[in-house]
Amino acid sequence: MTRTIVASASREIIIGFDQPFCVIGERINPTGRKKLAAEMVAGNFETVIKDALEQAAAGATMLDVNAGVTAVDPNATEPALLVQTLEIVQGLVDLPLSIDSSVSAAIEAGLKVAKGRPLVNSVTGEEEKLEAILPLVKKYDVPVVAISNDETGISEDPDVRFAVAKKIVERAQDYGIKPHDVVVDPLVMPIGAMGTAGRQVFALLRRLREELKVNTTCGLSNISFGLPHRHGINAAFIPMVIGAGMTSAIMNPCRPQEMEAVRGANVLNGTDRDCMTWIRTYKDYKPGEHAVAAPVKVSAPGEAANNGGRRRGGRDARLARAG
Amino acid sequence: MTRTIVASASREIIIGFDQPFCVIGERINPTGRKKLAAEMVAGNFETVIKDALEQAAAGATMLDVNAGVTAVDPNATEPALLVQTLEIVQGLVDLPLSIDSSVSAAIEAGLKVAKGRPLVNSVTGEEEKLEAILPLVKKYDVPVVAISNDETGISEDPDVRFAVAKKIVERAQDYGIKPHDVVVDPLVMPIGAMGTAGRQVFALLRRLREELKVNTTCGLSNISFGLPHRHGINAAFIPMVIGAGMTSAIMNPCRPQEMEAVRGANVLNGTDRDCMTWIRTYKDYKPGEHAVAAPVKVSAPGEAANNGGRRRGGRDARLARAG
Repeated sequence: MTRTIVASASREIIIGFDQPFCVIGERINPTGRKKLAAEMVAGNFETVIKDALEQAAAGATMLDVNAGVTAVDPNATEPALLVQTLEIVQGLVDLPLSIDSSVSAAIEAGLKVAKGRPLVNSVTGEEEKLEAILPLVKKYDVPVVAISNDETGISEDPDVRFAVAKKIVERAQDYGIKPHDVVVDPLVMPIGAMGTAGRQVFALLRRLREELKVNTTCGLSNISFGLPHRHGINAAFIPMVIGAGMTSAIMNPCRPQEMEAVRGANVLNGTDRDCMTWIRTYKDYKPGEHAVAAPVKVSAPGEAANNGGRRRGGRDARLARAG
Repeated sequence: MTRTIVASASREIIIGFDQPFCVIGERINPTGRKKLAAEMVAGNFETVIKDALEQAAAGATMLDVNAGVTAVDPNATEPALLVQTLEIVQGLVDLPLSIDSSVSAAIEAGLKVAKGRPLVNSVTGEEEKLEAILPLVKKYDVPVVAISNDETGISEDPDVRFAVAKKIVERAQDYGIKPHDVVVDPLVMPIGAMGTAGRQVFALLRRLREELKVNTTCGLSNISFGLPHRHGINAAFIPMVIGAGMTSAIMNPCRPQEMEAVRGANVLNGTDRDCMTWIRTYKDYKPGEHAVAAPVKVSAPGEAANNGGRRRGGRDARLARAG
């Protein structure tokens, strides 16, 4: 059984086919959020703090942390800013983090300070990326998101995207990284632009699960780009990808409709034992009202407890294992 | 490609893997609706009329019609009442009908008056049922719902339910009825009582599609029986069964959350061409508001037009083909 273990300072979470869907909160990311970028450059982390607390309260399983505030010489600014952001977030919430950067030096700086067992986001099939990121993933004994594109870009042919994923998994094995520590992103195209985008990704997810036996993730809201009422499309997409075998997604946990779809699909996929999370969240639900997450303790979200969460040794344990 | 053709007086609809999900409106059914049963017995069809118009306006693809007002000697009352109800409904809305009865004489009486090509609901694997219903299905050249239980009841073992479905498909072939005219109901158990009910039905749907190559249906809301906020569970279940290959369901089309899930899953399954139904329905959607179906003409619902709907010869054509 494929199990990807991630952890915060004191809490271990398993990503796997028999686990509740892993919701990786996407909000702490200044890409395309000019106001947030400006705040972070100015050393103002108010929005970061708000986003961390809100996503944890909404039921996120993990949080993605990105500090890409500029495209101009990111190597100079991003490592220190990512470290600062990670330290603020892990001081606030006890959720595993995803270290999200396209700058290898920032990823390594992040790995040095992150508690527990973070996820590295990401490596691609590009040679330069493979050579920069995989040694870090091995050195720090952490899992990594593998995005199915390479030097030739993103192929519209799902067979090519599968081949790129397979290459990354094989290259990771050359470095001593197990397939269960590679979480493949098969890349989701907007359905409004490509009518086959849904069926394509469902077929890819099955192959990734059955042939490569890896966990999977995606940037979820990409599917609905350009369409009206995007939350409705996202909320239908979530049960379909979960049914097809996807085990995590980078998404906005503060959207009640999407989180309701995650919780419903967990019930139907048999990963919400005795429907406990569903019943706790919706037992007082009134018809016509938008779903609201059940109150959860920020330091230890109730939903995470359902996700194989248990105490662990934290960063020291990870480094001991890595050593 | 498996195609089940149903038709009203003037409109043909295809149920198939490459078609929008077929929503069979469940409302016209006095079982468990004491007030409706009393009205129908008294010759008052106001609720029947209201339910027919509302379901058509909400986007139903077909309407199920049941007149089972009593368990006491239904043979005496049901044929005439079913005929009366069918005639009222087909006089109001131009949607294909499903003739729903456990009384064989009522089904035959209904088949004599129904325009177009109705669906018979249903036959089971019970010997007595097979022998009573299959000759009618052959004589009137109509499709039939095959429910996967037999004399031994409903098995909790999905392999047994698959075997019963296979037996019905084979017996139908002995009568000269093609598999594409058998729509299998694999039977959905409540997820609150059986945690594996979801995964069980997803696996069954794949086998029914791949091995028997039949269309499928179910009584959809059974999945959420006993749980709070049932619409949320139903709305997550719909995309999952559509992703697993289910092509129709008997459900309540007047529930906006469930219909939004159907429309979203059609987009993602590639059966809402250019997302036209989605865009037409939700282009003016306001966040926080419950989804409301786009206005459609009762006599020719807009969503049906997307479903291969086209003019056909009506009942005469069907009988000509049957003869």
